[in-house]
Amino acid sequence: MNDAMSYAEIQAIVDEDFAIMDKQVFGSLNSKVQLVMSVSKHVIDAGGKRMRPLITLLTARMLQDVQSEQAMQLAAITEMLHTATLVHDDVIDASGLRRGKPTANATWDNATAVLVGDYLIARSFNLLVGFNNLPLLKLFSDGTCDIAEGEVLQLQHQHNPEACEADYMQIIDGKTSRLFMMATKGAALLQGRDELLDDLGAFAYHFGNAFQIIDDVLDFSGDMAIMGKNLGDDLAEGKPTLPIIKTLEFLKNSASDDYDKLRIAVQTGKVDDAAVLIDLVRQSGAIEYCKNQALEQTRLAQEALARLPDNRYRDGLYQLTKLASSRLS
Amino acid sequence: MNDAMSYAEIQAIVDEDFAIMDKQVFGSLNSKVQLVMSVSKHVIDAGGKRMRPLITLLTARMLQDVQSEQAMQLAAITEMLHTATLVHDDVIDASGLRRGKPTANATWDNATAVLVGDYLIARSFNLLVGFNNLPLLKLFSDGTCDIAEGEVLQLQHQHNPEACEADYMQIIDGKTSRLFMMATKGAALLQGRDELLDDLGAFAYHFGNAFQIIDDVLDFSGDMAIMGKNLGDDLAEGKPTLPIIKTLEFLKNSASDDYDKLRIAVQTGKVDDAAVLIDLVRQSGAIEYCKNQALEQTRLAQEALARLPDNRYRDGLYQLTKLASSRLS
Repeated sequence: MNDAMSYAEIQAIVDEDFAIMDKQVFGSLNSKVQLVMSVSKHVIDAGGKRMRPLITLLTARMLQDVQSEQAMQLAAITEMLHTATLVHDDVIDASGLRRGKPTANATWDNATAVLVGDYLIARSFNLLVGFNNLPLLKLFSDGTCDIAEGEVLQLQHQHNPEACEADYMQIIDGKTSRLFMMATKGAALLQGRDELLDDLGAFAYHFGNAFQIIDDVLDFSGDMAIMGKNLGDDLAEGKPTLPIIKTLEFLKNSASDDYDKLRIAVQTGKVDDAAVLIDLVRQSGAIEYCKNQALEQTRLAQEALARLPDNRYRDGLYQLTKLASSRLS
Repeated sequence: MNDAMSYAEIQAIVDEDFAIMDKQVFGSLNSKVQLVMSVSKHVIDAGGKRMRPLITLLTARMLQDVQSEQAMQLAAITEMLHTATLVHDDVIDASGLRRGKPTANATWDNATAVLVGDYLIARSFNLLVGFNNLPLLKLFSDGTCDIAEGEVLQLQHQHNPEACEADYMQIIDGKTSRLFMMATKGAALLQGRDELLDDLGAFAYHFGNAFQIIDDVLDFSGDMAIMGKNLGDDLAEGKPTLPIIKTLEFLKNSASDDYDKLRIAVQTGKVDDAAVLIDLVRQSGAIEYCKNQALEQTRLAQEALARLPDNRYRDGLYQLTKLASSRLS
C-alpha cells in the first residue's frame, strides 16, 4: 500500500468529497457586491491543488468514514483563508503572476486586492461561526493571528543577514504549518475527537515545516519549468530562507569574500550575479543540510501519523508527505 | 439636560470605563513579534477620539449601570477593528498623514501596513472568541464582511459619475454605520438583552449614516484648519459622495457645461480647477440637500434612542448625535 501515488491518485481517495468542496469554495462567497465576486472567483479559480482542503477531507474521513457536510465546508474555508493570504502576499511582493496566471493586484489593483483579501478573511470567520463550535473558532482565530504574525516576522527579517534558523522556523510555523494544523485539528474538532488533537497537530506541524523547507530548497535547486518561477527569487526579495541562512553560517569563517558577497546581496536585494550566488548556496553544503532537515520533519510527521487510525485515508496523508519529499530528488 | 456638551464632557460620563478601555486597546495586542507591536501601537496611538468604544461604553451603562470588564474589552475590540480598516484605507489611498500624524504605510511601508492590518482583524476575532458568545461572534463576523463589502463597493464606484444615492447609502452602511451597529448591539448581546437589538441597531444605523454624510459635506464646506485635510479631497479621489452625486443630478439638465466639467473630474480625478468645482457643488443646492438628509438621519437616530432606557448614559448618546450635527452649522 506504500507505493508512491501521484497527487491525482491521492485526491481520488476522497474524490466525491473533493468535488463537492471545490464547488463550495465558490458557492460560499455569497457577496452582493459584484466586484467582490469577480475578484474572489478569479483568485480562487487561479488556485493551486487545494492541498489544505484535501488534508481536511482526508483527516475527517480517517477519523470517521462518512461524508460530512461540515468537513467539506471546513475544507472550503481553509482554502478561502489560504487564498486570502496569497492575495495579500501578491500585493506585498508586487507579484504579477502566480502559477502562471495574473494576480488580483495585476488584474485589478492593489486597493482591490487588499480589500477583497479582507473580505475573504471576514467571510471565512463568518462561515466558521455557522458551525456553532467555540473550540473550532478558537483554533481558527488563534491560527489566523499566528499566520499574520508569521508574515510580519518574515517582513521584519527581510534583508536581515543576521536572521538565524530559529527565526526561520518561527516564520514558517506561522506562514505555512499553522494552516496545515488548522486543517487537521479542525476536522477532529468537528467530531469532538479532542484526544487526537496532539497527534494531528504534530503531523501537520512537521509536514508543514517539511513542505516549506522543500519549497525554499527548490528556489535554489529546482527546475524552473516545473517551479513556474525564477531560481533565486527568495534571494532577490531578501527573504532569509533556510538555504540562505545556512550558507551564510557555513561561509562566515571562510577566507574568501563569498560571505560578504552573499550578505550584501541579502541586505540590498541586488543580485546582478544571481548565478554566482546560487552556486555559492549550492556548493556550501546548505542544500544538503536543508534536505536533511526536510527529511527529518517528514519523518516526525509520519511518526505522528502512525499513531492515528490506520486506514486508506491515513495512507493518503502519508502519501502526501512522500510526494512532497519526492520533489527533493 | 439637553444643553450641548463637548466631546470631553460626554466622555467624562463614563470616565473611568474609558480610561481602562483605552489601556486595554494596547494591552490586548499581545504579539510576540516586535514589529507587530510597534506598528500596532503607532497606529492605535495615532487614533482619534475613540468614538466607537465610547458608544459601546455608553450603551452598556445605559442598559445596566455597572462597570463591566466585558463591555470595556468589547469597546477596545471595536477600536482595534476600526484601526485595522483605517490602516488598510491609508494603504489604498496612499495617504501619508492621518489626523496630522504619519500613517503606517508612510512610516514603514505598504507591506507592513497590509499585514499588521490583517493581524488587527485576526486579533479582534481572537479576543471576541474569548467571550464564548456565539450571537456576538455572529454579529461581528457578519459586520466585518459588510464593512469589507462596503469598502469594495466604494472602490467599484470610484470614478463612476453614474453612481446614485442608493449606491452611496449602501457604501456608507458598510464602511461606517455597520461598526456603529456592532458597537451598540454588541453591548446588548453581552447582557443578553435581545429585545433591545432593533432599537439599538436603528439608533446606530441612522447615527452612522448622519455621521458619514456630515463628514462628506464638510469635504466641501468645512474649515480646512479644523478638518486637517484639503477641501475637495473626495473629488480628487473620484469618490462619488452624496454632495457630488446630488450636484451631478441637479446639473444634469442645465444648459451650461458645468455637468460635463464635474462628470469628467469624477471620471478622471483631475481637478486642476478645484475651486471652481467646489463652487459648483456649493451653489448647486446639493449641500442643503445633504444637510437635510443628515438632519433626518439624526432625527431617526434620536427617535430610536428615545425608546431606550432613559438615563444619563442615554443622554450621552443623544449628545453625541447633537455634537455631530453641530459640525454642520
